[in-house]
Amino acid sequence: MVLKLTALAASLGLEFHGDDCEIAGVNTLEKAGPNELSFLANPKYVAQLDSTRAGAVIVAQTQATRPGRLLVSADPYLDFCRAVELFALRQGSFFGVSPLAALASDLVLGLGCTIYPFVFVGPRTVIGANTTIFPGCYVGEDCRIGSGCTLYPNVVLMAGTEIGDKVTLNPGAVLGSEGFGFAPSATGLRKIPQIGRVIVGDRVEIGANTAIDRAALDATVIGSGVKIDNLVQIGHNVTIGDNSILVAQVGISGSTKVGKGVTMAGQAGISGHIEIGDGATVGPQAGVGHSVAAGKTVGGHPAMERVTYLRCLAVMPKLPDMARRINQLEKELAALKLAIGKGGTDG
Amino acid sequence: MVLKLTALAASLGLEFHGDDCEIAGVNTLEKAGPNELSFLANPKYVAQLDSTRAGAVIVAQTQATRPGRLLVSADPYLDFCRAVELFALRQGSFFGVSPLAALASDLVLGLGCTIYPFVFVGPRTVIGANTTIFPGCYVGEDCRIGSGCTLYPNVVLMAGTEIGDKVTLNPGAVLGSEGFGFAPSATGLRKIPQIGRVIVGDRVEIGANTAIDRAALDATVIGSGVKIDNLVQIGHNVTIGDNSILVAQVGISGSTKVGKGVTMAGQAGISGHIEIGDGATVGPQAGVGHSVAAGKTVGGHPAMERVTYLRCLAVMPKLPDMARRINQLEKELAALKLAIGKGGTDG
Amino acid sequence: MVLKLTALAASLGLEFHGDDCEIAGVNTLEKAGPNELSFLANPKYVAQLDSTRAGAVIVAQTQATRPGRLLVSADPYLDFCRAVELFALRQGSFFGVSPLAALASDLVLGLGCTIYPFVFVGPRTVIGANTTIFPGCYVGEDCRIGSGCTLYPNVVLMAGTEIGDKVTLNPGAVLGSEGFGFAPSATGLRKIPQIGRVIVGDRVEIGANTAIDRAALDATVIGSGVKIDNLVQIGHNVTIGDNSILVAQVGISGSTKVGKGVTMAGQAGISGHIEIGDGATVGPQAGVGHSVAAGKTVGGHPAMERVTYLRCLAVMPKLPDMARRINQLEKELAALKLAIGKGGTDG
Repeated sequence: MVLKLTALAASLGLEFHGDDCEIAGVNTLEKAGPNELSFLANPKYVAQLDSTRAGAVIVAQTQATRPGRLLVSADPYLDFCRAVELFALRQGSFFGVSPLAALASDLVLGLGCTIYPFVFVGPRTVIGANTTIFPGCYVGEDCRIGSGCTLYPNVVLMAGTEIGDKVTLNPGAVLGSEGFGFAPSATGLRKIPQIGRVIVGDRVEIGANTAIDRAALDATVIGSGVKIDNLVQIGHNVTIGDNSILVAQVGISGSTKVGKGVTMAGQAGISGHIEIGDGATVGPQAGVGHSVAAGKTVGGHPAMERVTYLRCLAVMPKLPDMARRINQLEKELAALKLAIGKGGTDG
Repeated sequence: MVLKLTALAASLGLEFHGDDCEIAGVNTLEKAGPNELSFLANPKYVAQLDSTRAGAVIVAQTQATRPGRLLVSADPYLDFCRAVELFALRQGSFFGVSPLAALASDLVLGLGCTIYPFVFVGPRTVIGANTTIFPGCYVGEDCRIGSGCTLYPNVVLMAGTEIGDKVTLNPGAVLGSEGFGFAPSATGLRKIPQIGRVIVGDRVEIGANTAIDRAALDATVIGSGVKIDNLVQIGHNVTIGDNSILVAQVGISGSTKVGKGVTMAGQAGISGHIEIGDGATVGPQAGVGHSVAAGKTVGGHPAMERVTYLRCLAVMPKLPDMARRINQLEKELAALKLAIGKGGTDG
Repeated sequence: MVLKLTALAASLGLEFHGDDCEIAGVNTLEKAGPNELSFLANPKYVAQLDSTRAGAVIVAQTQATRPGRLLVSADPYLDFCRAVELFALRQGSFFGVSPLAALASDLVLGLGCTIYPFVFVGPRTVIGANTTIFPGCYVGEDCRIGSGCTLYPNVVLMAGTEIGDKVTLNPGAVLGSEGFGFAPSATGLRKIPQIGRVIVGDRVEIGANTAIDRAALDATVIGSGVKIDNLVQIGHNVTIGDNSILVAQVGISGSTKVGKGVTMAGQAGISGHIEIGDGATVGPQAGVGHSVAAGKTVGGHPAMERVTYLRCLAVMPKLPDMARRINQLEKELAALKLAIGKGGTDG
């Protein structure tokens, strides 16, 4: 797609400085060519404005007086994102319902849906309009999928999974795997049948090869607007509040309740049966064994409040030195006691 | 399915107090309705017995005198699990062997098996009775799968994989991926062909998107009764003893031997070429670099014995304060030496 | 395959001691039988030379005078690897292009390729000679796959992915999933379209269920000779230099640049927007929040230089004792001050 720069500025509602040209794509300041639009959001990179070959740049008001083709924005990054959306190509090449898919005869399919070859959909499932299901996906019986969703290749929804509108499931994501539940018995571990399901809200993104277990009895629930990265583990009966963000390789054990607007950094691990309050933040690789109050930031293993955690990070490399100094103090104190004849008074 | 409560109690072999009613399902005390059975196992939730809307509750002997419909049990949780099994629906909607599967002509298939569409099975493979293989599964050549197994969608068994009876493989689980083996050579890393396979015992559960590498030469072995959660990594040549439990995101490096009845909590990492003794327990996120003796509990990074680890967890948040107090001690001791004229006697 | 031992020695270019015999396979010293070849590389296992039942053993010059059938090598492990390659069976049972695959009509396919059933390939894709694509793989539009590659079952390449020659992608690996990019906006998180792709060099190995996100605008790049283990997460815009090694469950956040010949041990986590210099080494479970200079070895959370990290590992279990000793020092010092009447001079 090629757009006139003036038309692009108008479409984004941005003030435009300079002469018109044609824009065919978007790129970083470093890599953009004469037919590409770029942006400057971080003042750290302001020097790149002099060297960039970009055809035009979205800048903040503070840069509006520079020479060259500029689109002036109150939020350059956000407006650049809007521009990217204009140039984004749709992933995929197939439209309509493939005769090579295996679909239950009672499937209720909205208008504008695409079902690729090698998709399996079980009975009593309903799929909303304009949803695309890529090859190798499995949708079990009694599922509900909203409209405008994308199921990338090899996504699995086990029976009864419910998905809202505008949900994106990246390749290999699994929703509704068996919860990990076993009861000790006289003859060894006894498997507890996991008869619940997974419910997902609107505008949720779920990463590649992420696994979300179905509940033992009821439902594992992912709120609307939640963003889940790749390779995340979510145990049975977990609930995640709206608009929370889980970065890659986070693991949440069974029955834990995560509030709204929570952020968990990569590889954090959360114990089962605890609560993470609304707006809380969990640091990378944190090991959270106890509930976290709303709005708190925690980090480390064991998870500590932010200030303590940051201080611990600073102290940690000094540990060997601290051990040496304690030895030294003990020696000096003993010597001092001896010198002043107080060796026997305490300890 | 709807059962008379009296019939249900008889079927479970439990003493029953109260009048009869119809039970259509199972649920938690908090969520159960008048036609659902619930249970009280944890005394912490005893207050919920007053507020629950459950039609009947399985309780311990200590609660047997309460009003309402009660089933009295020596182990309420275990008996509830048995009740859940009665109400559990079978996942899946398809029966028989699909003409849309690609099966080797010499496949030996037991009675009562289900093979969904888009399953591929290679030559010289044998599958026992009553095993179900969901869509998108790949079973390579020379595999052996026992009876009563479930391969959920998109499970991969590479050539020569052997699976016992009553094994459940969750979606996306991979058995027999290439081991990670490279030898340094003059021209860079040289790949070591991984010509072994994976052998799995009876009653094993393997989680979604878990990966188990095939051995370099021989076999990676998973003992009977082992329960493996989602997103677990098991390297080549590893052996896992019977009835061990690996929680989500655990990683075990190549050639390590894990004993029987071992428990590893989530995100623990185990080095290669070591031994974890029978009945040992490894804490969450632990980093285990050395062998662990049978029956020991370890935690932390580096992995420490349980008592030391628990004390470290308690001390960790005090680290910054400890550093401050060492500074203070040094100052005070120096001041004291100066004051008493002993500054030059040592250090 | 059965080879005469003399022919095998000649083929490997190794000096041979003993009488001829037939060799049908390769195995460890412990498990090899009379028709199998083994090796001794680690002097720790020299005693096994006396007890092994192996038909022949590859040994170093230092063992060349022992009795029995020996192949003498300057690098026994490397030469054993070469022998393993001779006996390695090719995974897979199918040859040619399956009529059960769904291939775009404009697919350019090299000589000697194998495309299994249930493979989907989108338009404008080019695949080199002798490449094998197992069942359940998805190759999107505009992809380039080199020659001699293996895509094991259920591998996903999203649109525009480019793969060099002799690349192995293990089952369930995903290349080109959507990068995790969201911009805060007045109405909540706004998804940033991820319109880039993934480029992979030659002789790369990628593990089972590993996920590599496509770039936001440009390309996520994996250099030639890179070896990536199972369940690794690589964020958008990351670049990995040639011949680097990423062990299982490593996670690398977006836009980080990893140099050439870098080694990252299992479960290490690397922050976004930093640089890991050529030849650096990152320890297991390390949490790397800052750039690492070329050639450095770091470990721990936070990541510390090697010597500091090793000392910290040694000190860590002594933390509770250190805390106790600080308490004790404070008491003793206070008592001493009191005893000599200096309690009020400082602190």
